[in-house]
Amino acid sequence: MNLGTKMGKQTIVYDDSVYIKSFYSSVGKLEGEGPLGKCFDVVYKDEYIEAKNWEQAENNLLKNTVTGAFAKAELSCDDMDYVFSGDLLNQCTGSSFALKDMCIPYYGLYGACSTMAESMSLGSIMVDAGYGQNVLAVTSSHFCSSEKQYRFPLEYGGIRTPSAQWTVTGSGAVILSPDKSHICLDSITTGKMVDLGVTDNANMGAAMAPAAADCILAHLRDLELKPADYDCIVTGDLGIVGSTLVNEIIQKQGSDISDVHMDCGSMIFDPNTQDTASGGSGCGCSASVFCGHFCRELIQGNIKKMLLVCTGALMSPTTYQLGETVVGIAHAVGLSYRE
Amino acid sequence: MNLGTKMGKQTIVYDDSVYIKSFYSSVGKLEGEGPLGKCFDVVYKDEYIEAKNWEQAENNLLKNTVTGAFAKAELSCDDMDYVFSGDLLNQCTGSSFALKDMCIPYYGLYGACSTMAESMSLGSIMVDAGYGQNVLAVTSSHFCSSEKQYRFPLEYGGIRTPSAQWTVTGSGAVILSPDKSHICLDSITTGKMVDLGVTDNANMGAAMAPAAADCILAHLRDLELKPADYDCIVTGDLGIVGSTLVNEIIQKQGSDISDVHMDCGSMIFDPNTQDTASGGSGCGCSASVFCGHFCRELIQGNIKKMLLVCTGALMSPTTYQLGETVVGIAHAVGLSYRE
Repeated sequence: MNLGTKMGKQTIVYDDSVYIKSFYSSVGKLEGEGPLGKCFDVVYKDEYIEAKNWEQAENNLLKNTVTGAFAKAELSCDDMDYVFSGDLLNQCTGSSFALKDMCIPYYGLYGACSTMAESMSLGSIMVDAGYGQNVLAVTSSHFCSSEKQYRFPLEYGGIRTPSAQWTVTGSGAVILSPDKSHICLDSITTGKMVDLGVTDNANMGAAMAPAAADCILAHLRDLELKPADYDCIVTGDLGIVGSTLVNEIIQKQGSDISDVHMDCGSMIFDPNTQDTASGGSGCGCSASVFCGHFCRELIQGNIKKMLLVCTGALMSPTTYQLGETVVGIAHAVGLSYRE
Repeated sequence: MNLGTKMGKQTIVYDDSVYIKSFYSSVGKLEGEGPLGKCFDVVYKDEYIEAKNWEQAENNLLKNTVTGAFAKAELSCDDMDYVFSGDLLNQCTGSSFALKDMCIPYYGLYGACSTMAESMSLGSIMVDAGYGQNVLAVTSSHFCSSEKQYRFPLEYGGIRTPSAQWTVTGSGAVILSPDKSHICLDSITTGKMVDLGVTDNANMGAAMAPAAADCILAHLRDLELKPADYDCIVTGDLGIVGSTLVNEIIQKQGSDISDVHMDCGSMIFDPNTQDTASGGSGCGCSASVFCGHFCRELIQGNIKKMLLVCTGALMSPTTYQLGETVVGIAHAVGLSYRE
């Protein structure tokens, strides 16, 4: 038993105690046609995913992703000690209805689009403390269930502003374990909420960028690291607008991540050909890009050390209608390649 | 460092590593007029709680409860290592807007009305693993914000069925710490989702009772305990209908908790004079009754050993309209008096 060490105010560093045993990703048609299309385990041919409505489609998306992660590790529901999951649907029913029949001790989360890092963070503590041999961390989002809930009926064909983002139809799942593998989960940095007063819900990137910067700077400060100590610092879904902002904010604080910064939301679509405005968003964006692209790069040793910083906008249509701000949050997970 | 022990599939037993340093409860007017009215730290004179709308009222309720818990322990935001919180509002904005300016590393949860036990469970793991000296666990619900979101406009004056429950306007907060106090957090049992096919969203007690029974039986089995080993086994908000059911289900499994069973939802209102049908519900029900009534009984040694089993119904108005079932979950926390 090698327990980790709390470093600074927000970061825990593990002592080789948590690894990724299995990872799996699933996406919709548009994501499959994007620049990362070839790296996902499953690309669905349409948004229905064998269901009669968008909510059930998202349930199937998440459930099938979990089943895929089980199959890759040759494990089943019974082998899981805990599952941590959440999503964007009201009352997180994407997760609960997808996972309800699997009979795994369940912790429901709400971290908006930061959920993949939140679930991996809390899951890693269970593994580190010796309470879980196999802990599942998973999340999803679905373009159609999100549009219906947050914006307009699909049939309305609403026009987007250039700063708006496109909710990814996607899901990613990892199984965390103390069993050694090629991907080690080294550290977690728990984010604080940051509210700089953004009220435009069509500019989530601006709302989330300050929280992403705060979390990245906290991580570097707590561990006394420089940006160049990472091959890449990967934000979740800041999109093109938010990615510019996070770099500016960090530069104003005297640091510079621009040489190593990447953003899942800016990577998953081609803005020139796919009409996705500022890029991808949703819990499933960083989840599918992490499990689809970055886990493969890590396992092959193409990336030796990365920081995943999933970003969330904590708001609802109700708070928006009441004129409230959009509150940002970001959680970070440090990962490295092991031979 | 005395790390706990995983017992059976779902339970962790701590080795004197987690205590409740501070607890605080706040409720609305109706709850203050109920049988437990005198035990809450604050009873608000109306449902507005110094706000202009019900969502802000719930934010103030949760924020003031946290501030109260800080004051009792002579601590501030800066002393908190983590906060775990969630609520019933879409996208959990009750928690995020209440806590956003406190700058505490934040994990958002969605466990429906099981949130108090979920937040205490995850918070206790942080304390047990040595990653938190002061960890805040808190939740809230508000009758008016819930009615507006889940049911009808208040002005409509909808009539309730006898099995329906009344969402408690209330909040409860605890600060968990390794520092010894009179209330020790001994164990946690993480619940599995249970879906027996209940589709009546005016009978949450029936939907949650099977999950409560499953969690209680898992706890007793994992720790090889009998119901009589506890002074009381306290369910969260099964209400009058669900309380009958949980006892029946457990009896069918060859056990009997009826001598020690209590239910926060059945205790908080007087059904004969308060017109609250089957009793109280909402995250704030078990949170306020635990922090208001049971923590006082524990600290005085009137209760020596109790099991708190917070119960949640995982559904949304959307899943109800789609004809989906209401999925139940329950998480349990074992507590004892220490001299």
